[in-house]
Amino acid sequence: MLSKSKISLIGSLDNKKFRKQHGLFIAEGKKIILEVLDSAKFEIVDLFLTSSALKEISADLLTGIDVTEISDSELERISLLTTPSFGLALLNIPKEMTPRVPQFNEVILMLDSVRDPGNLGTIIRLCDWFGVSQIICSEETVDVYSPKVIQASMGSFCRVNIFYSDLISQLQSLEKNVRIYATVLNGTPLQQIQKSKPSVIIIGNESHGISKSILGFVTDKITIESARSSEAESLNAAMAAGIVLYEFRR
Amino acid sequence: MLSKSKISLIGSLDNKKFRKQHGLFIAEGKKIILEVLDSAKFEIVDLFLTSSALKEISADLLTGIDVTEISDSELERISLLTTPSFGLALLNIPKEMTPRVPQFNEVILMLDSVRDPGNLGTIIRLCDWFGVSQIICSEETVDVYSPKVIQASMGSFCRVNIFYSDLISQLQSLEKNVRIYATVLNGTPLQQIQKSKPSVIIIGNESHGISKSILGFVTDKITIESARSSEAESLNAAMAAGIVLYEFRR
Repeated sequence: MLSKSKISLIGSLDNKKFRKQHGLFIAEGKKIILEVLDSAKFEIVDLFLTSSALKEISADLLTGIDVTEISDSELERISLLTTPSFGLALLNIPKEMTPRVPQFNEVILMLDSVRDPGNLGTIIRLCDWFGVSQIICSEETVDVYSPKVIQASMGSFCRVNIFYSDLISQLQSLEKNVRIYATVLNGTPLQQIQKSKPSVIIIGNESHGISKSILGFVTDKITIESARSSEAESLNAAMAAGIVLYEFRR
Repeated sequence: MLSKSKISLIGSLDNKKFRKQHGLFIAEGKKIILEVLDSAKFEIVDLFLTSSALKEISADLLTGIDVTEISDSELERISLLTTPSFGLALLNIPKEMTPRVPQFNEVILMLDSVRDPGNLGTIIRLCDWFGVSQIICSEETVDVYSPKVIQASMGSFCRVNIFYSDLISQLQSLEKNVRIYATVLNGTPLQQIQKSKPSVIIIGNESHGISKSILGFVTDKITIESARSSEAESLNAAMAAGIVLYEFRR
């Protein structure tokens, strides 16, 4: 059974202010809940599972976890998804640690005010795919604990470390040998860029790109060329990140 | 002023059945409306603009178009967006033509049951960027005139030709010199693939990949390699399409 206060608490967590106040966020659906159970990164405060989900999950995965069996209609009441299934987990937001400076053969990503939750989620999934273990987000970047980001990341938020920080001071603290790449409209074609490590790749805001104050730190300006005939204005920010990360692994 | 019947007609166009019945679809927001006005591809049946939008738009763009001035609150009533602005256009769905076989230096895309509207919209935008002028979708692929697809394509639906057809008969009708590429889980790493034209690139369904009946036609199976340490299950379908198209232009 779900108490009224729990229902209203969960509903409030769509809002960053309340996530911060309670130190909690939610994760939904089978894939993501299984990833969270498998990961040591997040403490599960409450786990709400439908009876069919409970049958699917092995009991030892649930040892020491506060599990509540709920009906499908109860899940519908608390879910933020259009087609809820399996269950919903209430998780503790971990204390934020300090980002690590890039190591000798490492690429890290910086996000300069990426606002769309779907983009951040997709970028987290990409980093997981391409082996980038750290993302440093500007304070204006959408909150990683937003339910839409968690959903779009498909469980990859359990494996990629995400920090919020002032990008300028982060850039100032880098060693001199770290190259700083950024995607811009009139840079060097990506395939011609010399890819060196350690490095930082900066992805800019969906409408305004990289801020001026950040551009000064960039050592290599990258452009993903369009076809000559193309009239498209830009590529989506997550798509640009994916193509750049592919090229860096190539 | 908006009539009640118009409001209910517009509301119904979120549903494919009613789009088919009326032969109409909707497009919203400044960027997309300006692209539609600029394109000869779609006939505008009705254009609803807020008074501030009307001030922004040059009168000669509107010659011969049935324009209705509406209030912001009227726009909110008909819009399918969470933050509506500028206006909404009611457009005729054009008669479907027959896809063209790929020409000598051309790449065309086939979508085998891509279901997510955001993915199809993103793929249309990508094709526009990378100069792919034709997409052939299986009948199970999400409808291009779904409002979410139109929105995600950011106006690129005005420049890329999208067809629905039985992929098997399309593949059977190809000349022998056309190579057929598809993204799979255990193929040749993308960077090692010999890229030849004319060619067809097939992108599969978000959960099930390429159907078995289609796989038999594929001449080159492609994989976008993940980092060795990666535990991510897959890349998003649109992301895979973007990375493959980048590599083909590289």
